[in-house]
Amino acid sequence: MTGPRFTRLAETLPTDVPFVGPEAQERKMGQPFRARIGANESVFGPSPRAVEALKAEAAEVWKYADSANHDLIRALAEDMGARPENIVVGPGIDGLLGVLVRLLIEPGDPVVTTLGAYPTFNYHVNGFGGTLHKVPFAADEREDLPALLDRARETGAKLVYFANPDNPMGSWWSGEEIAAQLDRIPEGTLLLLDEAYVEFGPAGTAPAIDPDDPRVIRMRTFSKAHGLAGLRVGYACGAPGLIRAFDKVRDHFGMNRPAQVAALASLNDRVWLEEVRAGVAKAKERIAKIAAANGLTALPSATNFVTIDCGGDGAFAKAVLDALVARGVFVRMPFDAPQNRCIRVSCGTPEDLDVLAEMLPLALADVRETAEG
Amino acid sequence: MTGPRFTRLAETLPTDVPFVGPEAQERKMGQPFRARIGANESVFGPSPRAVEALKAEAAEVWKYADSANHDLIRALAEDMGARPENIVVGPGIDGLLGVLVRLLIEPGDPVVTTLGAYPTFNYHVNGFGGTLHKVPFAADEREDLPALLDRARETGAKLVYFANPDNPMGSWWSGEEIAAQLDRIPEGTLLLLDEAYVEFGPAGTAPAIDPDDPRVIRMRTFSKAHGLAGLRVGYACGAPGLIRAFDKVRDHFGMNRPAQVAALASLNDRVWLEEVRAGVAKAKERIAKIAAANGLTALPSATNFVTIDCGGDGAFAKAVLDALVARGVFVRMPFDAPQNRCIRVSCGTPEDLDVLAEMLPLALADVRETAEG
Repeated sequence: MTGPRFTRLAETLPTDVPFVGPEAQERKMGQPFRARIGANESVFGPSPRAVEALKAEAAEVWKYADSANHDLIRALAEDMGARPENIVVGPGIDGLLGVLVRLLIEPGDPVVTTLGAYPTFNYHVNGFGGTLHKVPFAADEREDLPALLDRARETGAKLVYFANPDNPMGSWWSGEEIAAQLDRIPEGTLLLLDEAYVEFGPAGTAPAIDPDDPRVIRMRTFSKAHGLAGLRVGYACGAPGLIRAFDKVRDHFGMNRPAQVAALASLNDRVWLEEVRAGVAKAKERIAKIAAANGLTALPSATNFVTIDCGGDGAFAKAVLDALVARGVFVRMPFDAPQNRCIRVSCGTPEDLDVLAEMLPLALADVRETAEG
Repeated sequence: MTGPRFTRLAETLPTDVPFVGPEAQERKMGQPFRARIGANESVFGPSPRAVEALKAEAAEVWKYADSANHDLIRALAEDMGARPENIVVGPGIDGLLGVLVRLLIEPGDPVVTTLGAYPTFNYHVNGFGGTLHKVPFAADEREDLPALLDRARETGAKLVYFANPDNPMGSWWSGEEIAAQLDRIPEGTLLLLDEAYVEFGPAGTAPAIDPDDPRVIRMRTFSKAHGLAGLRVGYACGAPGLIRAFDKVRDHFGMNRPAQVAALASLNDRVWLEEVRAGVAKAKERIAKIAAANGLTALPSATNFVTIDCGGDGAFAKAVLDALVARGVFVRMPFDAPQNRCIRVSCGTPEDLDVLAEMLPLALADVRETAEG
């Protein structure tokens, strides 16, 4: 008896995962992390209104969720200055990225992204057989939008990924700078603007783009500023023809009810969003101070994390990261050079950052000791 | 400016959805249903332990869920008499079907199912360009497993869909009858055994199959007996090589935290499962009586719904269904002849079935009046 016959593409794909979760690391270490500041989750938690909505919905989960996401889509459309026809809701930006890539990319189709940008986007492109063309970060650690569009023109790319603000570097473009590039998008190329962290950017970070503009799709999430990562709810805004196409392949009954009610409650809680922003701003200042006290350089950030230049090469930063993890601090780092000279620390509670302040000098000492020993 | 360039396959796909949800129907009608007994949800609700777990988890949803589904997979493996390597968890059977089809089917690949069986499976096969070969139900309203395997051999099918118990007819095979067919599975064909309703079947409905048998993958869900449809959690059991392949393309951080904790709590609550089974058994008896009182025939059912033969053709049953819907009773019906002479009624609470008892004679009168008028 042989096994099933996979597609030719599936045969070639690795079973590697884009990220190892903190729980898997904890099981391996045999103990929980003391500070969970590696996945850019919002340690400040969800809006109290969202928590209340979740509790109220608990006994109702025997019902499938509204497959049309009617109420949430209308609220999001109003929030985005768009019409419901411009909005699709899905299980996180990750889920929406998968559907978008599936709709556009077949084996060999060219796609452009930044070397070292969001690995899950690459995972989806590889998963549908697309060919990734990677443009380096600019010298100022920003994704290089003009160079991305140049490469799209050269390669005939169907899709260009651009995150603003950026993960993992925390850098950003102003909305005006982005808007000025739109006319450079090649005919037949779709610009995917990942705005997962946009709520943390300074005023004007989100560009003014006509929701009906067929050249751009923007994606946002409730996983970051709204503190609902564990519920899986993201949304995309774009031209109606593109948005309607999601209905061709999406899992129509795939949204969970808790996600729908909590997202709606959170969207209506602007007070909580301001509290989270304030908490993030304070945490970023403290992380920068902790970095400086250890002779490291915190990069400017328009997100809910701080990327810290460890001042060495990728191997050095990896050693610092490993030492932090071994000491109970969950952090991550960029995968590619030269950004992999950095580690990435998510904004934590004051208690989380006390742990970081305690452990970073010890971790650095561990690394230097090993290097000398 | 033109829009994005879709794949050749995506260009050909319709934007039709497999099912219209009850909420969309309610919005169209401008009023809520009086009885929600159309989607085979468990009106008896989730386990009180699951509800408690959901409330306890509400403030924790800022964390991504464990991407490895570690604890749930171990509990399921024990429950299935399998090893963790045999189990994958996903966002409902719908989500797992999508991943399985993606792994196996490329444009033109043959797939076998029953004419009138689960439409969402067909949706996924069409969505990846597979060619569906449909075998009629047997005369006893069961899916015709020997004929399905014959057709698989004739067409060289990579995948055969077989639900036991069946939806929408409620019919079933004994586990022994199924086991006796396994050696007839053609080399290179995977039998997909959808056991969404297996908890409602008589003892012996689930076949004894070695979890490592590479010819079969079985799928189960928390959406039916466990009353967690709105959380999206299903699982598949199969040979480790096939199960591991899901990691090539699944959305690793796609599970939501409430689903993980509630499923685990529900799995440990056998008392609740027995209560649900008892409630379902009572409701099925009552639905059969209501049908008989109206001159209609309830078919035997090993599920949490009853399929009622309306005694006419598809147009007649559709008229009965429409009249019930118009009178506030959400029910569904098989899509294809000759099974579409039936309507399908999910087990309701006593109050739901009071509404059915009141409205079914009126709906039948509506239809007869229109026919005579």
